[in-house]
Amino acid sequence: MIDLRSDTVTKPTQAMRDAMYHAEVGDDVYKEDPTVCRLEELAASKLGKEDALFVTSGTQGNQIAVLTHCRSGNEVLLEQDSHIFYYEGGAISAFAGVQTRTISGVRGEMNPDELELAIRGNDIHEPETGLICMENTHNRAGGAIVSVENMKAVYNVAKKHAIPVHLDGARLFNAAVAKQCSIKEFTQNADTVQICLSKGLGAPIGSLIAGSSEIITRARKWRKRLGGGLRQVGTIAAPGIIALTEMVDRLSEDHHHAKVLAEGIGAVVGLEVINNVDTNIVLVDVSGKRMSSTEYIDKLSENGIKAVSFGPSVVRFTTHYDVTSQQITQALKTINSL
Amino acid sequence: MIDLRSDTVTKPTQAMRDAMYHAEVGDDVYKEDPTVCRLEELAASKLGKEDALFVTSGTQGNQIAVLTHCRSGNEVLLEQDSHIFYYEGGAISAFAGVQTRTISGVRGEMNPDELELAIRGNDIHEPETGLICMENTHNRAGGAIVSVENMKAVYNVAKKHAIPVHLDGARLFNAAVAKQCSIKEFTQNADTVQICLSKGLGAPIGSLIAGSSEIITRARKWRKRLGGGLRQVGTIAAPGIIALTEMVDRLSEDHHHAKVLAEGIGAVVGLEVINNVDTNIVLVDVSGKRMSSTEYIDKLSENGIKAVSFGPSVVRFTTHYDVTSQQITQALKTINSL
Amino acid sequence: MIDLRSDTVTKPTQAMRDAMYHAEVGDDVYKEDPTVCRLEELAASKLGKEDALFVTSGTQGNQIAVLTHCRSGNEVLLEQDSHIFYYEGGAISAFAGVQTRTISGVRGEMNPDELELAIRGNDIHEPETGLICMENTHNRAGGAIVSVENMKAVYNVAKKHAIPVHLDGARLFNAAVAKQCSIKEFTQNADTVQICLSKGLGAPIGSLIAGSSEIITRARKWRKRLGGGLRQVGTIAAPGIIALTEMVDRLSEDHHHAKVLAEGIGAVVGLEVINNVDTNIVLVDVSGKRMSSTEYIDKLSENGIKAVSFGPSVVRFTTHYDVTSQQITQALKTINSL
Amino acid sequence: MIDLRSDTVTKPTQAMRDAMYHAEVGDDVYKEDPTVCRLEELAASKLGKEDALFVTSGTQGNQIAVLTHCRSGNEVLLEQDSHIFYYEGGAISAFAGVQTRTISGVRGEMNPDELELAIRGNDIHEPETGLICMENTHNRAGGAIVSVENMKAVYNVAKKHAIPVHLDGARLFNAAVAKQCSIKEFTQNADTVQICLSKGLGAPIGSLIAGSSEIITRARKWRKRLGGGLRQVGTIAAPGIIALTEMVDRLSEDHHHAKVLAEGIGAVVGLEVINNVDTNIVLVDVSGKRMSSTEYIDKLSENGIKAVSFGPSVVRFTTHYDVTSQQITQALKTINSL
Repeated sequence: MIDLRSDTVTKPTQAMRDAMYHAEVGDDVYKEDPTVCRLEELAASKLGKEDALFVTSGTQGNQIAVLTHCRSGNEVLLEQDSHIFYYEGGAISAFAGVQTRTISGVRGEMNPDELELAIRGNDIHEPETGLICMENTHNRAGGAIVSVENMKAVYNVAKKHAIPVHLDGARLFNAAVAKQCSIKEFTQNADTVQICLSKGLGAPIGSLIAGSSEIITRARKWRKRLGGGLRQVGTIAAPGIIALTEMVDRLSEDHHHAKVLAEGIGAVVGLEVINNVDTNIVLVDVSGKRMSSTEYIDKLSENGIKAVSFGPSVVRFTTHYDVTSQQITQALKTINSL
Repeated sequence: MIDLRSDTVTKPTQAMRDAMYHAEVGDDVYKEDPTVCRLEELAASKLGKEDALFVTSGTQGNQIAVLTHCRSGNEVLLEQDSHIFYYEGGAISAFAGVQTRTISGVRGEMNPDELELAIRGNDIHEPETGLICMENTHNRAGGAIVSVENMKAVYNVAKKHAIPVHLDGARLFNAAVAKQCSIKEFTQNADTVQICLSKGLGAPIGSLIAGSSEIITRARKWRKRLGGGLRQVGTIAAPGIIALTEMVDRLSEDHHHAKVLAEGIGAVVGLEVINNVDTNIVLVDVSGKRMSSTEYIDKLSENGIKAVSFGPSVVRFTTHYDVTSQQITQALKTINSL
Repeated sequence: MIDLRSDTVTKPTQAMRDAMYHAEVGDDVYKEDPTVCRLEELAASKLGKEDALFVTSGTQGNQIAVLTHCRSGNEVLLEQDSHIFYYEGGAISAFAGVQTRTISGVRGEMNPDELELAIRGNDIHEPETGLICMENTHNRAGGAIVSVENMKAVYNVAKKHAIPVHLDGARLFNAAVAKQCSIKEFTQNADTVQICLSKGLGAPIGSLIAGSSEIITRARKWRKRLGGGLRQVGTIAAPGIIALTEMVDRLSEDHHHAKVLAEGIGAVVGLEVINNVDTNIVLVDVSGKRMSSTEYIDKLSENGIKAVSFGPSVVRFTTHYDVTSQQITQALKTINSL
Repeated sequence: MIDLRSDTVTKPTQAMRDAMYHAEVGDDVYKEDPTVCRLEELAASKLGKEDALFVTSGTQGNQIAVLTHCRSGNEVLLEQDSHIFYYEGGAISAFAGVQTRTISGVRGEMNPDELELAIRGNDIHEPETGLICMENTHNRAGGAIVSVENMKAVYNVAKKHAIPVHLDGARLFNAAVAKQCSIKEFTQNADTVQICLSKGLGAPIGSLIAGSSEIITRARKWRKRLGGGLRQVGTIAAPGIIALTEMVDRLSEDHHHAKVLAEGIGAVVGLEVINNVDTNIVLVDVSGKRMSSTEYIDKLSENGIKAVSFGPSVVRFTTHYDVTSQQITQALKTINSL
């Protein structure tokens, strides 16, 4: 099976298994796990923030950000296809009691003017705008990179109105590697940022949320309430350190694979690549094949390829560490033959 | 002052004051206020529902509907300029813990196909679609009437997916009077409906929510939690009965006044009426006057006319019982002269 | 029928009906109702606070206080039989997301030392103590007066830990009249206070919450979210002014009636008055009659007397404006004969 | 250092490190991690439930139980010193919107009659009793075992009123081992049960919640919202399997150590053991030493022993896998000498 469903399916590398095996651990509720402390310092430093906190998933990091920045009765502005709005079970409304107000973006970028118009005033009928969320790379926009310029413009609007900004950077390293720039160019335009270790970076479990010390202190308590306060965390933080130190640069391979895949698919009659392939995601409209996305996915699956549906006629392919060049070639051969 | 800000500013009529004065009352928490019981039965009957419940405002009626139909973690589909989303302080997320997912409507009407696409599936990442809300007439769309056909189409989509429908009918009587049809043609396409007594119908205070007996029983408890369980309610229910029985048909006057106002304003250079004037609301773009909406409103105010802002360059005028034909003429004269 | 169920059943007096009839009104959402403004100023002044806000019920006033003082994740300390905990449908947890921590009081008074021990520390496992609530007079303790001394001691503990204090003073005027002191002696030991117009004071509808201007401004927005932002509020505020100005001193009559009732009942074999009758409530244990409270209440009802159950064997009698001395005599005669 | 703070500080055994190293893994959001599936089946079978779900902590398991059983506006009955009430940051009110109503237990056992009296009726003023929670062993009662008889009595009361029961069994295996009975004798008196792998059983991370398939299906979605849906979970589930299969019986050693410790401490002038030492926890009142608990703990720490405060004058000692017999002897020697 060539598994192109998601970069979350990557299995821990040998180095990661070694790191787990040898991990020095302690009880992190008492802040005594040296490995997770090391990972948090490392992440804070890389992201250019004062402090960072290990969380068990990107969803948990995002939820904690909203709970920490907002209170119930607030409104959160975010892109209409963003993960926080689309894929987190409505949790920010369920837990933080905030209303979601979505902006329709272009390739994941929200128009700063439109965003500013959506900020609420002091009228007694209106919720207070409590947070602006960005997502980079933007998953449902096909791994699109939100430019530093757009982020800066959004951040400026936010600061003008004294509104905090959270960046869902589950795949932010993909953006930095693709743009060959420092990840800090992105993160300096956000007050908090969440990054995932278990997507392209290949760690088995975990994400981090970074921000000011004051915010991270409060975030730690919300993490406890969500059940994310763990004990010998070093066991999973150790492979996370490998992920952050050894697995970032190689993301360019995944991007190359995605481009190869997109080119090949683009040449197939009945298939249309509908996104600019900025990073490791290829979105394909299969309606020319007179099939629904799920029918086409079943077909792929019978022929040894796994992918996921991204709407009635759209299929998503994602490249990652566990997909080799040969597998990309093989996948294209199979797709051609269908 | 000619007050065209809102139909909420109407003062109780003489008949209403008489009714208050003579109202037979009791303690409604014990369900012993005969006047509010009479009002609730009357409303249920007019709206074609099993039961109805007096609430202190449209907002309260809408909140109770969401609390009764949904649970936290659900998602509610509603038009992007609807009152529940726009003007209720984010309360449905704060109190009911539901996420709002907005549909961009045309003159208040949501496209049923687009709506159906927005209904969530069983995926573990997605909230359950717990409710669809409609608004009729639609305030921010300029008092636009949502057609019975559109309502039926939306209701059919909802029922196909076993999702309840709530109708914010704060100005639903305006729609029925303008269309010269029974209000039940609208309400039969909703499971619950909220109507306001204190807008065009002129009562000082109050709204009603109607639906099945089972729903209203549960709604009564949520009303208590919100602090809407009152005592000698007959005092305000009595003018409400006048509102429902004597003030409905005359809404056509307000609609006539709005049309006259719109025609007159349409002839003024620099002003543009931007809505079809279905009922009692006129939306005017004042940007041709090289003024913001608030500047123009200040100008109007200095000249004896009150209106409200509906965006950076849009002013809303609303006709109602306390605005006479002479005042409409006078208002047009003033507007012309500015 | 002699209705001793609650002082909420009082019907508006002639003066109140006159006041409603003549009430000068406006749209209170625009803060243009002169009568409710007058009532709010009057209440603020009487309670010794900067500002006050009209709300539709005691429950609504209490909910607003919690929503304004706290945020989700906080813990509220309150007496285990208090109205906010016992009779408000769990609303403070449902709406404000706060955890309730109850203190077992003696005649409504919480021990300040015990209270202080219940205040949470900084540990990451613990919620922050966000509010302390008192209730005076205390309903389930039988209309017991919480002494100024106890209030002061509680308030001192709260201030030592920088925790706000809310006073549910639904029947606070009963305490002041019984103690022949200024109501401010009580209210100065609370940051916000809620008083009811529709209990002993006889108004048909309404309560007020008073506090600093800053708190009341925020409270106004939470009132809107709860659906308590109304229009021509003067209609019900007018009798509220009568309640505050003309109905306070006469509460001593109700207290006298309660004492007479308690003495009479105390002499009946099988009945035991279990509370000190500080104000207008008499709690009677009927187990000596070998009946449950509901059986005894049915018996009373067949004989022209209404009361309510306050537990398996306890019946509550409440005196109020609509119960005359003759009715008290008659009630005692009947009770004696059962 | 002899670390007697908590059984959460245990480090993974060699067998656990081996298991992590070799763990077969997959993406558990797709339910494709064979190791966590095996752990969940194993736990369900041991606990006598249809299904089980891996969660990252006891707190998360408890939160999921409340979110799955209840809705906002419900009331939860639980012991006043229970972990869910005392140590979870008020999260069940913050996230599930439920009100907590506490019962004062004796050695962790709630009186079934008292509990039944606390169940709410249908009155519109009252929240619905949505859940009863038990805790076994009971941490703050000193690791006290709640007897099967008490659990059965509580469960019967609950079932009579159609209320679900959740068991916080973070240390339930301690109870079963101490009583030399099957753990099912306890779990059959609860609808859901949470057990911890990372306390006495020594795993680095994780808990499980077990119940009917229908409940676990819904629980899985709430886990996703809380951010507990992870990827290659096998890495931490593998040591969890060791914990469940190889680490249960040896808990008797910890219990023996606790008894030895308690006897020794009991003989020291100025120290008083205040709990029956049923399992692995010893509570000691140090006020006879004229020190506060934190002062005494500092003293211990200077002399190589770690313990935690359990109130102003109470210190908790907890035995576990990483504390040897020699260390117990050494600890007693040190305590004697202070």
